[in-house]
Amino acid sequence: MTQKRVYLFKEGNANMKNLLGGKGANLAEMTNAGLPVPPGLTITTETCMEYIDNGNQMPAGLMDDVKKALTEVEKQAGKKFGDASNPLLVSVRSGARLSMPGMMETILNLGLNDETIKGVINLTQNERFAYDSYRRFLTMFGSVVLDIERHHFEKELDIIKAEQGVKLDTEVNAEGLKKLIPVYKNIIKEHSGKEFPQDPYTQLQLAIEAVFSSWNIPRAVAYRNHYKIDHRYGTAVNVQTMVFGNMGDDSATGVSFTRNPSTGENEFYGEYLTNAQGEDVVAGIRTPKAISELKIEMPELYKQYVDIAQKLERTYSDVQDMEFTIEKGRLYILQTRNGKRTAAAAVRIAVEMKEEGVITKERAIQLVDPSQLYQLMLPSFDPKAKKSGKLIAQGLNASPGAAVGKIVFDTDEAAERGLAGEKVILVRIETCPDDIHGMIAAQGVLTLRGGMTSHAAVVAKGMGKPCVAGCESLRIDVKNETLTTSDGNVYRKNDVISMDGGTGEIFEGSIATVEPKMDENFEKLFTWADEIKTLLVRANADTPEDAEKAMELGAKGIGLCRTEHMFMAQDRLPVVQRMIIAGTKEARKEALAQLLPMQYQDFKDMFKALKGYPMTIRLLDPPLHEFLPNKDELIAEVATLKALGKDASKQESLLHTVENLSESNPMMGLRGCRLGLTYPEINEMQVRAIFEAACDLKKEGMEVKPEVMIPLIGHVNELKAVRNQLEEVAQQVMQERNIEVDYQFGTMIEIPRAALTADAIADYAEFFSFGTNDLTQMTFGYSRDDAESKFLNNYVEQKILPSNPFETLDQEGVGQLMKIAIEKGQSVRPGIKLGICGEHGGDPESVKFCHRIGLNYVSCSPFRVPVARLAAAQAVLEEKGMKTLVTK
Amino acid sequence: MTQKRVYLFKEGNANMKNLLGGKGANLAEMTNAGLPVPPGLTITTETCMEYIDNGNQMPAGLMDDVKKALTEVEKQAGKKFGDASNPLLVSVRSGARLSMPGMMETILNLGLNDETIKGVINLTQNERFAYDSYRRFLTMFGSVVLDIERHHFEKELDIIKAEQGVKLDTEVNAEGLKKLIPVYKNIIKEHSGKEFPQDPYTQLQLAIEAVFSSWNIPRAVAYRNHYKIDHRYGTAVNVQTMVFGNMGDDSATGVSFTRNPSTGENEFYGEYLTNAQGEDVVAGIRTPKAISELKIEMPELYKQYVDIAQKLERTYSDVQDMEFTIEKGRLYILQTRNGKRTAAAAVRIAVEMKEEGVITKERAIQLVDPSQLYQLMLPSFDPKAKKSGKLIAQGLNASPGAAVGKIVFDTDEAAERGLAGEKVILVRIETCPDDIHGMIAAQGVLTLRGGMTSHAAVVAKGMGKPCVAGCESLRIDVKNETLTTSDGNVYRKNDVISMDGGTGEIFEGSIATVEPKMDENFEKLFTWADEIKTLLVRANADTPEDAEKAMELGAKGIGLCRTEHMFMAQDRLPVVQRMIIAGTKEARKEALAQLLPMQYQDFKDMFKALKGYPMTIRLLDPPLHEFLPNKDELIAEVATLKALGKDASKQESLLHTVENLSESNPMMGLRGCRLGLTYPEINEMQVRAIFEAACDLKKEGMEVKPEVMIPLIGHVNELKAVRNQLEEVAQQVMQERNIEVDYQFGTMIEIPRAALTADAIADYAEFFSFGTNDLTQMTFGYSRDDAESKFLNNYVEQKILPSNPFETLDQEGVGQLMKIAIEKGQSVRPGIKLGICGEHGGDPESVKFCHRIGLNYVSCSPFRVPVARLAAAQAVLEEKGMKTLVTK
Repeated sequence: MTQKRVYLFKEGNANMKNLLGGKGANLAEMTNAGLPVPPGLTITTETCMEYIDNGNQMPAGLMDDVKKALTEVEKQAGKKFGDASNPLLVSVRSGARLSMPGMMETILNLGLNDETIKGVINLTQNERFAYDSYRRFLTMFGSVVLDIERHHFEKELDIIKAEQGVKLDTEVNAEGLKKLIPVYKNIIKEHSGKEFPQDPYTQLQLAIEAVFSSWNIPRAVAYRNHYKIDHRYGTAVNVQTMVFGNMGDDSATGVSFTRNPSTGENEFYGEYLTNAQGEDVVAGIRTPKAISELKIEMPELYKQYVDIAQKLERTYSDVQDMEFTIEKGRLYILQTRNGKRTAAAAVRIAVEMKEEGVITKERAIQLVDPSQLYQLMLPSFDPKAKKSGKLIAQGLNASPGAAVGKIVFDTDEAAERGLAGEKVILVRIETCPDDIHGMIAAQGVLTLRGGMTSHAAVVAKGMGKPCVAGCESLRIDVKNETLTTSDGNVYRKNDVISMDGGTGEIFEGSIATVEPKMDENFEKLFTWADEIKTLLVRANADTPEDAEKAMELGAKGIGLCRTEHMFMAQDRLPVVQRMIIAGTKEARKEALAQLLPMQYQDFKDMFKALKGYPMTIRLLDPPLHEFLPNKDELIAEVATLKALGKDASKQESLLHTVENLSESNPMMGLRGCRLGLTYPEINEMQVRAIFEAACDLKKEGMEVKPEVMIPLIGHVNELKAVRNQLEEVAQQVMQERNIEVDYQFGTMIEIPRAALTADAIADYAEFFSFGTNDLTQMTFGYSRDDAESKFLNNYVEQKILPSNPFETLDQEGVGQLMKIAIEKGQSVRPGIKLGICGEHGGDPESVKFCHRIGLNYVSCSPFRVPVARLAAAQAVLEEKGMKTLVTK
Repeated sequence: MTQKRVYLFKEGNANMKNLLGGKGANLAEMTNAGLPVPPGLTITTETCMEYIDNGNQMPAGLMDDVKKALTEVEKQAGKKFGDASNPLLVSVRSGARLSMPGMMETILNLGLNDETIKGVINLTQNERFAYDSYRRFLTMFGSVVLDIERHHFEKELDIIKAEQGVKLDTEVNAEGLKKLIPVYKNIIKEHSGKEFPQDPYTQLQLAIEAVFSSWNIPRAVAYRNHYKIDHRYGTAVNVQTMVFGNMGDDSATGVSFTRNPSTGENEFYGEYLTNAQGEDVVAGIRTPKAISELKIEMPELYKQYVDIAQKLERTYSDVQDMEFTIEKGRLYILQTRNGKRTAAAAVRIAVEMKEEGVITKERAIQLVDPSQLYQLMLPSFDPKAKKSGKLIAQGLNASPGAAVGKIVFDTDEAAERGLAGEKVILVRIETCPDDIHGMIAAQGVLTLRGGMTSHAAVVAKGMGKPCVAGCESLRIDVKNETLTTSDGNVYRKNDVISMDGGTGEIFEGSIATVEPKMDENFEKLFTWADEIKTLLVRANADTPEDAEKAMELGAKGIGLCRTEHMFMAQDRLPVVQRMIIAGTKEARKEALAQLLPMQYQDFKDMFKALKGYPMTIRLLDPPLHEFLPNKDELIAEVATLKALGKDASKQESLLHTVENLSESNPMMGLRGCRLGLTYPEINEMQVRAIFEAACDLKKEGMEVKPEVMIPLIGHVNELKAVRNQLEEVAQQVMQERNIEVDYQFGTMIEIPRAALTADAIADYAEFFSFGTNDLTQMTFGYSRDDAESKFLNNYVEQKILPSNPFETLDQEGVGQLMKIAIEKGQSVRPGIKLGICGEHGGDPESVKFCHRIGLNYVSCSPFRVPVARLAAAQAVLEEKGMKTLVTK
């Protein structure tokens, strides 16, 4: 090896990661960008492998190269290594090409010895700081380089603390720390068999060797094995000058943002302390000064800093969060990174930076995290008020937003009082379609059972209504109308609680909320997003109100109108139940005839709200027993009546019907098209209502685009049979009305078999809509109703799964099926329309995946439409190789 | 077109299907094999297209070619077309290259006219037969060729019947039929505008044109569209000599088998009638004579016939079912096809034909239908006794076999009385693992709910126990212990019923049964099968008895040992329940410690039974609530106690536990490895028991091969976590016992996602076992517990699905996932062991599929082992291009 082994920071650049490691390459890049980075050098990763291949021996001449480079560093820093009056101290760090925990930790203050400490004391006029630095260095050197167990050092510190009668390390005075130095040197001698090396170059060589050797310690090897990282990569070693902000009144340290991270306002924002260390700013012992004061105290340096900050903002095309130190009148930038910010600030910063010409519109799109956006559309708790609130329970953050109201347990009561203008929180063990009117009228919904995709969660999300689900620590006593916490505290009906659907927290009493504000920045950002994105965004909506809200938020049609919710209205449920209980086809048809005009009006209202945009209408999907009373309650009722000797025949007969319809696994039972094939007259009524409404509106000159979606197809023959039957109804209605409407028939792809045989299915479908909720259920074999509380949350916590697949699409498994379906579907019908209508349609990562695999549209709940629009635009940019580097 | 348009039968062969159609090619082949087939000619399919392309005009010269060929036919038949003394009559039939319903029907007796009928009367001396033939010909010609509606003809026949005061066509006398002739000719003239053509050649030309035209009638076009058959194929026309067995005492007609189709005995078997038509043999008006009498009546012809029969048996390498006619001393073979036979006959015939040197051992294997074999291993009802039995209900044929016994509703009672030697039938609404002891002791199991793969069906099949499931027309009154049929008939406890698990029938009283017999033919056949097959056959077995039975039937190990059944034994359930209800890990471990020695003994007994063959042990799989009392019953109990003011706290607490464990869709809930990851100590106990047993037996010098199977894996991380944990237990036990055993860890592939990500999973699995029951559930989204009775049986009936996918593997969907899994698994671990342990492992078609996709073994219930062995051998032969042409 005759290659260059040691690089000064100024000799490298960001592209040299493989040779200089990630950290080394970044330090080089910043140095060359003209930033006043504390100077230093990097020993290459190749040298590490040379060392190892050499049997853990330093390559000949390496230390000479290091010394030569260090001389250069000394010049830049204006200090000398080992100099007692103005000593250069350095940090030594490992740095592989990929971030890789498990290797050697950092050693700070290397170069300290019994001589150089005098210089530090003299320069800082702070003996305590100097000895504290020295004893820390001895501990790090002893433990990390010489492999002496840490507790030997800690024990001695404890003795001193006991002597001084103090509890914290920071309370030990200079005298105490000074006494530790000989003791620590003794520990090193005793355990390593050698004196602590006073020579800084010896210290440095040993530290470098320790970094090299750490490449092959077992936990590093295991880590590489696990993540399949090449064992031949090696690690670089970074040796960097230490700088100190506590060297007098011409020294200082601080942090700052190039813009206000809370509001997004374009103002230099931050704080600093003179003659202080970085920790002092954070620790809060002294009150830091606003960064604007630096302008007065050190105008030259302030100007230099602001210039650098603005340059950095341009370089990184983003708000910068910087750390700086001024050492004896000299400014050093220790770190700069993209700044974290609130959702509101993110939008304002992105739009303003674009309008200032600092960034492009594309970059503006990239600077906002779509998933954060959702917050902006919902009320939230005042952070201060929330801090002082009394937390009484913690559930799943099923649907975000803040809500305050009186506890109500009964759905009808919640509906009535809520509609009357009272603020109530509906509290239920779990919700079912029967509860919808109560959910609509309540401020928020709290359930004790069910997961992120339970009925309560899905419906609440669709409504943009706050919901905390699966709050299992609570108990409801329905009879006495009380809610008991795990501590035994009892809350009664009408007690006020506050709930944060974004965190799953439940608080006692009323907490002040902040209303959302959607300003013109928001509008601008979305106009740009729409200019960039190619994916269409539709909404899932079942009511004209939801449809209008969705259009307002930028949806271009409805991707999923669930007709079952229409069956649940209070005035219809009895008719629906009569239809279900009907013993004969005639009785069923009679009930259906009553439902027809209602459904007709439903669809008419929906079409009107849509103003010509397409609407995908899913035919009745859920198992019929969902429309009937709860089985367990009926069993108890029958048993009670019988025990009391009362007549239970009516209830028994109903129970019999419910039992006949009940299934062991209703999710995989008689629902979707299976229902349609068993009771064809239900679908026929629905399709008649759709086409009657469409024809009548078209006659009035309105544009209508119905897309009839047949759910739960697993075999092409199902689709063929249902489609043929319903196509006939459609034709008949159009003939009766003597007008033609544009329409399509299509299917959901939500059963794995449908994806696997999508070629056959595409023969009978003008569109596929991926029902990724069910597809995820079947692909994983997870019941949405149970999985989260029973084991899935646990899986995510234990990292068995990277995330909840009901929230973020499982690209590897479910996504693979989607790709298979698309490829097969397009092989038969090249222009087939492709969409997604599962909850994933509003999840940014999933939206991007949908763009990549070539869907035409995503459909999500109305409040997620903006999220999807932004994510869709980002997907286009990512495809062009632009990284989305959002800092949350 | 100058190609040959008309072929005599003797000019064609079986390979000319495309040109001569399927029927024409077969007639040619038989003729050339030297069979006395009534002579005839075939007009090619190309000529049909020529006719159509010509605007439905007969190609010039075609009729000349037909006449020329017909002259040849006349010579062969010794008759003349249109000859009044000895007329040649012909049939005209269409025949495309693929069998294709929808085209022209057959026309018989073409050539009859007012002259030739005289010849027929003279020759048959049967005026009624002659006029009946004539009026039938006029009807066919009028309706089929001239497109006159049939009812015009039928109406006139009705008038004659009324005149003669008779009801049936066959009762009309010669006079009546004769009177119809001028009437029918009149109808033809009236509706077609032309006289009925007396000229036979005109008749023939019109018939040929009708066949050609029928290629493009709407229903034929629709059929081809549906089945994607090329519209350019065209149809051939077959013109064949009619022969008559009723031309005097030197004429006869009959049917015969080359061997006895009931017993398989090598004897010429059949019956005939002299001076009769084919219909007479079937109609039963005259009693037919045994074929052996023909030897006396017509020794020459008999010899000729037997020679032909033997030759045909050799040609087709199978028993032949033949139809013959002797016309005036001349033998004609009208048809020969492979004969249907019973299962017992199939085995005997196959083995004897091989031993006689008629067929090869490969052909012998092909001659037996594996699915029929299963019958041979079970008792069956005496067919005559069954015929006179009173059918009281019809359920699903869940597990074949005949059973007779007294009705018992209570499981414990069934167990007790059954073990005491009494014959009982266990009748339950549905069964659960609690019922196993009762099922074991009963003769058969009848359930009112549940499908082909319900608990009752699966367990009964595994035991080889007759079971009728989902007999929904019956009602049980548990309290009064009665069973009520849909007619309202009531059967009480101890009433005797008979059940046929192979048909799903339930009869009143006792029906005589026939015991199965497995003779040496059976042994021979299976020895040959084993010599041919490459797929290994294992069994699913949970008890030493089942394991021994499986080995006896030829299994080479156990592919699925379900440990949950071991948890269900009466003495263990309370311990298991304590384990489940345990509030703490410690309490759970305490209960598990009690189970450990029991499981240890279980596995020890199993290993012993296996004599060194491998055993795949599946760790606990079902949801825990399956081990607890029924929720609905508990709810009713609690409600009753409370209504009566009694203490229900104990029951309430149990109900609370049951409710906590209950899930909306347990099939997709907390089970399999999800259970293992939630309560790791359960799996640990099981693995400890497996390895303690294995180590101890190995110390005694016994060979043991445990394969630990982790169920319900959907993500590699699940397998990784469980395997690492259990591998540690295994190592620890082997260290404690100081001995190493051969073992493997593997997983079931039963979740679609596991198949889709099998590459990652193969990293941690030495074997994959396809759990196609669950895989079918998830791939289709069908709940095994409900689907069949709710909609699946309906789907099969309506032909939406070709078959029940829980019985015969869905190769298109589920099979596609299997192929993906195999390809991905082998890409990572080339030698990975591959098996199947779903019910499909015993289904012949599915076994063949498993062979084709490269599995190493199939595993099925013990009584299906012979089925799988035979199917596996057939799969090898089919792969070599030998068709399995089993005639059931």
